[in-house]
Amino acid sequence: MPKLLILSREADKYRALIEKARLPDLTIGLTPTSDVDIVFGETGLIKDALASLPALTWVQTTSAGVETLMNSALRRDYILTNARNVFGKLMSEYVFGYLLAHERQIFKRFADQQAKHWNQKNTGVLYGKTIGLLGVGSIGAELARTAKFFEMTVHGYTRSSETSQNIDKYFHGNDLLKFASGLDYLVSVLPNTQETRKIVNADLLNTLAPHTLFINVGRGSAVDETALLDALNENKIAGAVLDVFEQEPLPIDHPFWTTKNLIMTFHSSAPSLPEDLAKVFIENYKLFIEGKPLQHLVDFERGY
Amino acid sequence: MPKLLILSREADKYRALIEKARLPDLTIGLTPTSDVDIVFGETGLIKDALASLPALTWVQTTSAGVETLMNSALRRDYILTNARNVFGKLMSEYVFGYLLAHERQIFKRFADQQAKHWNQKNTGVLYGKTIGLLGVGSIGAELARTAKFFEMTVHGYTRSSETSQNIDKYFHGNDLLKFASGLDYLVSVLPNTQETRKIVNADLLNTLAPHTLFINVGRGSAVDETALLDALNENKIAGAVLDVFEQEPLPIDHPFWTTKNLIMTFHSSAPSLPEDLAKVFIENYKLFIEGKPLQHLVDFERGY
Repeated sequence: MPKLLILSREADKYRALIEKARLPDLTIGLTPTSDVDIVFGETGLIKDALASLPALTWVQTTSAGVETLMNSALRRDYILTNARNVFGKLMSEYVFGYLLAHERQIFKRFADQQAKHWNQKNTGVLYGKTIGLLGVGSIGAELARTAKFFEMTVHGYTRSSETSQNIDKYFHGNDLLKFASGLDYLVSVLPNTQETRKIVNADLLNTLAPHTLFINVGRGSAVDETALLDALNENKIAGAVLDVFEQEPLPIDHPFWTTKNLIMTFHSSAPSLPEDLAKVFIENYKLFIEGKPLQHLVDFERGY
Repeated sequence: MPKLLILSREADKYRALIEKARLPDLTIGLTPTSDVDIVFGETGLIKDALASLPALTWVQTTSAGVETLMNSALRRDYILTNARNVFGKLMSEYVFGYLLAHERQIFKRFADQQAKHWNQKNTGVLYGKTIGLLGVGSIGAELARTAKFFEMTVHGYTRSSETSQNIDKYFHGNDLLKFASGLDYLVSVLPNTQETRKIVNADLLNTLAPHTLFINVGRGSAVDETALLDALNENKIAGAVLDVFEQEPLPIDHPFWTTKNLIMTFHSSAPSLPEDLAKVFIENYKLFIEGKPLQHLVDFERGY
């Protein structure tokens, strides 16, 4: 009889949602015991519990990012699945909210209002623009789908896969700078892996057109923060919207807080919806008890 | 041989675009002459020229709104067509830009950044919300299509038509207050007609839930401005985003400039794209010379 441990700041909410699904044979607990074989929750809490779960066979995370569990000193003798197809639509709202705020000059217009200045000048539009996606997994594919809805051109940079039909042009490997030229917006959804480390560096930023807006909703490690600081201070790009940082929370003395044309949010681009995340667990559990392959498997070698 | 008069502040741009289309038999001028039979341009300029165009048979406007030409003292002995299917996608960008700015608390988060406050609290999302559209013509239908893309529920209030498949529930006639209850967002795209005058009044505003955001991208005449002022000051609704006003430009002493939870822009929600508007004329001209019915006919009695 499978025993589930829920490790989350929203454990009570998840427990109620999972109990409501009346899953066969499942017992649920909120504290680690030696008979727990399944864990569902947040990577930080799971990491701390790993050593006290001798019977562990499967971990389902409530996040897409799992780098906390990738440390090679940690055990890897269990099946790890993450949350996918959940954050795409929420991140899409974030990315397109800030793209529209940029084109429609939402801050500038508010300043006009405060100055009682009837400024009827046209603003920009998304329609017809080119967006470049660094990373085209499930989140990138959803951003591509939204971009096509707004009649934009979509370029995608990815290691190898070409599965999204909403990408007009794919770039791989050494074509990173070719990918970067000609973009109106660059959006990174890259996870934190060896290959993605500081991929957004001075070379890439120098290749972007001066009117380009950069958005990072992936992981902060993909950005060379010093190079981005320089690019913004020297007007090499039009602006940046950052939800993630090398170090989080961002240290109080970090220059990003006050860098011009930089807007930041606080690792909150995809507000987690417990209903959606519980559903990911519930669907995977049904596969688990039938002995079928689970969805959203993480490869410890690739790191995602 | 048809003679076209272009009356627009962007006349040179339109002339170049229309000449490029090499339309058969057409001559183009930029000043009124007695042999002009077609006019393409802005309603304000057209109104002033009406009396000096004895041969006029057809007017194509560059706007959706045509109330300037509806004055019953003006001649109506010509075919009037307006610009439709052009502004929908641009207004949709505007409306969803401000809806996302509202849900994602873009201004609030920027204040957090300025205060160096790492505020990781979840923001709201569009996904799952209910939007109510006052008016479901070509612009309303495009807003409905975008709302469905974001997986929202769409209610539509319209005089009679039920042509959009993206409206989950239609309301008519006396059901205005029924329509207003249960909405998260209310968006007016209503034109300026006798029937729409001050339709957004105290009764309707009092029926909205306190968390509702109201957006007006139609015409200012559809709103009882005093009632809206009261609703905002008394927190009866969460906020308003207004692009249009009873009087434009908004008088410098109007309270809206400084009303709390009110964001205004300056009749600029749909930046006109000359390429798209020239295309509307070009397509209609091809019908015109073939003697076929024109698209986007305006009914002088209805006023749109």
